[in-house]
Amino acid sequence: MPETPAEELASRAAALQRHLAAQGLDAALIVQNADLFYFTGSIQSGVYVVPAAGRPVYGVRRVLERARRESSLERIVPLESLRALPALLADAVEGPVRRVGMELDVVPVAVRDRFAAALPGVEIADVSSSIRTVRSVKSASELATMREAAHLAHFMVEVAVRTLREGMTELELSAEVEAAARRRGHQGTVRVRGWNQEIYYGAILSGEAGAVPSFLDFPLGGEGPTPAVPYGAGRRRIVAGEPVVMDYTAAVDGYLSDQTRTLVIGVLPPRLARAHEAAVEILHEVEAALRPGVRPSDLYRLALDKAAALGYAEGFMGVRPYRSRFVGHGLGVELDEWPVLAEGFSDPLQPGQVLCVEPKIVFPGEGAVGIEDVFVVTPTGAERLTITERQLLPVK
Amino acid sequence: MPETPAEELASRAAALQRHLAAQGLDAALIVQNADLFYFTGSIQSGVYVVPAAGRPVYGVRRVLERARRESSLERIVPLESLRALPALLADAVEGPVRRVGMELDVVPVAVRDRFAAALPGVEIADVSSSIRTVRSVKSASELATMREAAHLAHFMVEVAVRTLREGMTELELSAEVEAAARRRGHQGTVRVRGWNQEIYYGAILSGEAGAVPSFLDFPLGGEGPTPAVPYGAGRRRIVAGEPVVMDYTAAVDGYLSDQTRTLVIGVLPPRLARAHEAAVEILHEVEAALRPGVRPSDLYRLALDKAAALGYAEGFMGVRPYRSRFVGHGLGVELDEWPVLAEGFSDPLQPGQVLCVEPKIVFPGEGAVGIEDVFVVTPTGAERLTITERQLLPVK
Repeated sequence: MPETPAEELASRAAALQRHLAAQGLDAALIVQNADLFYFTGSIQSGVYVVPAAGRPVYGVRRVLERARRESSLERIVPLESLRALPALLADAVEGPVRRVGMELDVVPVAVRDRFAAALPGVEIADVSSSIRTVRSVKSASELATMREAAHLAHFMVEVAVRTLREGMTELELSAEVEAAARRRGHQGTVRVRGWNQEIYYGAILSGEAGAVPSFLDFPLGGEGPTPAVPYGAGRRRIVAGEPVVMDYTAAVDGYLSDQTRTLVIGVLPPRLARAHEAAVEILHEVEAALRPGVRPSDLYRLALDKAAALGYAEGFMGVRPYRSRFVGHGLGVELDEWPVLAEGFSDPLQPGQVLCVEPKIVFPGEGAVGIEDVFVVTPTGAERLTITERQLLPVK
Repeated sequence: MPETPAEELASRAAALQRHLAAQGLDAALIVQNADLFYFTGSIQSGVYVVPAAGRPVYGVRRVLERARRESSLERIVPLESLRALPALLADAVEGPVRRVGMELDVVPVAVRDRFAAALPGVEIADVSSSIRTVRSVKSASELATMREAAHLAHFMVEVAVRTLREGMTELELSAEVEAAARRRGHQGTVRVRGWNQEIYYGAILSGEAGAVPSFLDFPLGGEGPTPAVPYGAGRRRIVAGEPVVMDYTAAVDGYLSDQTRTLVIGVLPPRLARAHEAAVEILHEVEAALRPGVRPSDLYRLALDKAAALGYAEGFMGVRPYRSRFVGHGLGVELDEWPVLAEGFSDPLQPGQVLCVEPKIVFPGEGAVGIEDVFVVTPTGAERLTITERQLLPVK
């Protein structure tokens, strides 16, 4: 089994420690699965205590033996219950503990309350933006795993291209792609951080279904199989000459790829083919501007301006009022990492940040076209991690 | 698409209203996906306001048109942002609003804080136990869907029995079962309520892997494909003569089945075969005691006593200290519904409650055997919803 190297875990904790000092926090208490995987290499029921200064300690309720086997951390100790939390904190933090950070963007109120009851007199603040900022910059080993995920994503597109036939339903095509991906090592579980955001593998949407929005903050929604899962592939039969948008995740050893391609049986109507060309152009425009120092919000505006200049002010990233207000997002262990290519994200890009860029154009009642690739910011520009050819994918 | 009938939605809201009055709440603000599906029939980004008395209203940010199409509720109105929440509440609640309930077992702190900021002077209390109590009693239409899910679960066992071959890995067998289930209408997404609890389809665990605990509060854990998904099927090759425990969910139109069977290529060693017989006996013992008025905690003790009497005080529901402290759980839209057959659940059973009973016996280093069926409590006893034969399933 792959193991996150001890030096990486140490440098991740050190990066977080710089934020803790700046935030006036004595320690961070990390409890959410994705964050535990990132900071400890092993998802257990427990608390990873990162003090503002000094050595972190992973307190594990269950399963201690697995934590010790899977994680390269030095200090892994049993944590029988939250009653032992003050002792765990005292072990990690020098001096009195007055203020600690938790992941309050995801931790439920009832869970926070149990921690508060176990730590009388200690203030609990939100450390989630520090964690998301640290996690946004990927190491060489994370990038290596994300390249593996990108290869799986490419394989999934190949499966879709060779499987798609007129008359299949979206769900039938999805089932074949997902089964092939699972056999090839897709981990199954795909993690999303946002409250109430859900995803299965992704979406294959044909014709008008591509223009159906959902409750999820994605530019493409889809009917889904049932009102209980009102997103992604539905029961619609795929017809020749309509766009089939495939926006799929691949997940390998904890890391994601997220790629979109547009397929068509036969030939797209010229209006939609032109829109697809425009999406590719917007992707190239954003790619060319990706480099350290650029603000994500400026890249978003660049994409909006380019879309408008090409005649797609309407329909770009969805149709009002359900338009998505971003053109890309961070990616790693979770699908919705930082930074987001959107207003409000003005911290300049840094080398090692990974971004999905996903220009999509939606025509109500007709469908959607689009493309999405994953890039890593390099010292001088950006490098593409996804490997699939960047064009409309015709199927005979 | 299936639609939850208007009368059902009305009676679900009315059941919750009885709790709201008793809890001194002016209204419940329902926002979590599973609860929205249960109470409105349509998962949107929005707030379903159930006043303590009077007519509920569903305020929808996105997608209003889908809510109106999928839900049979009368009052569905646009909710542009949380700034409009006071007006939505004023519309539903007569008189001043002083205290409202939210699902604080699942709502993140940051989300609760945004609601609190939008509702100055209003106290926000936890209404989750009322919601879970209401949801525990299933209607005839819910039971009909759960029977469909039970048929899918049976089909998945059949696929496993005809696919299992010596030398396959757990993941290979899982991939075939999941692909077949998906083609047959499995909705993909499986919802779990508990904080940090995750599930993909379920677990197929062979030999010693059946005895590997995970961070999840399940009696069976498993290695999983990677430390990033440290549960369920792993890369272990299945050998003849060892137990292969299959604990799988089936999910159809929002509702789950959850069934366990033990397979074996050839013949189990006598010690494990006897333990399997004991698990079946414990299942029958609990089944015979299932009826309205019985306390879930008493059924748990009954199972523990029976296990001890049969010689399985050790290993029943896992091995200390990672033993699960329950022998069954509620089931419906989520995998971990109420009631739980565990200490602390002393409210007497009611007709319409659905329970999984899942006696499992674990032998460290050797494996696990067990069985799980789903039952509905009837006016006079219990009826089994799952339909698979209740025995060890041999494979040639």
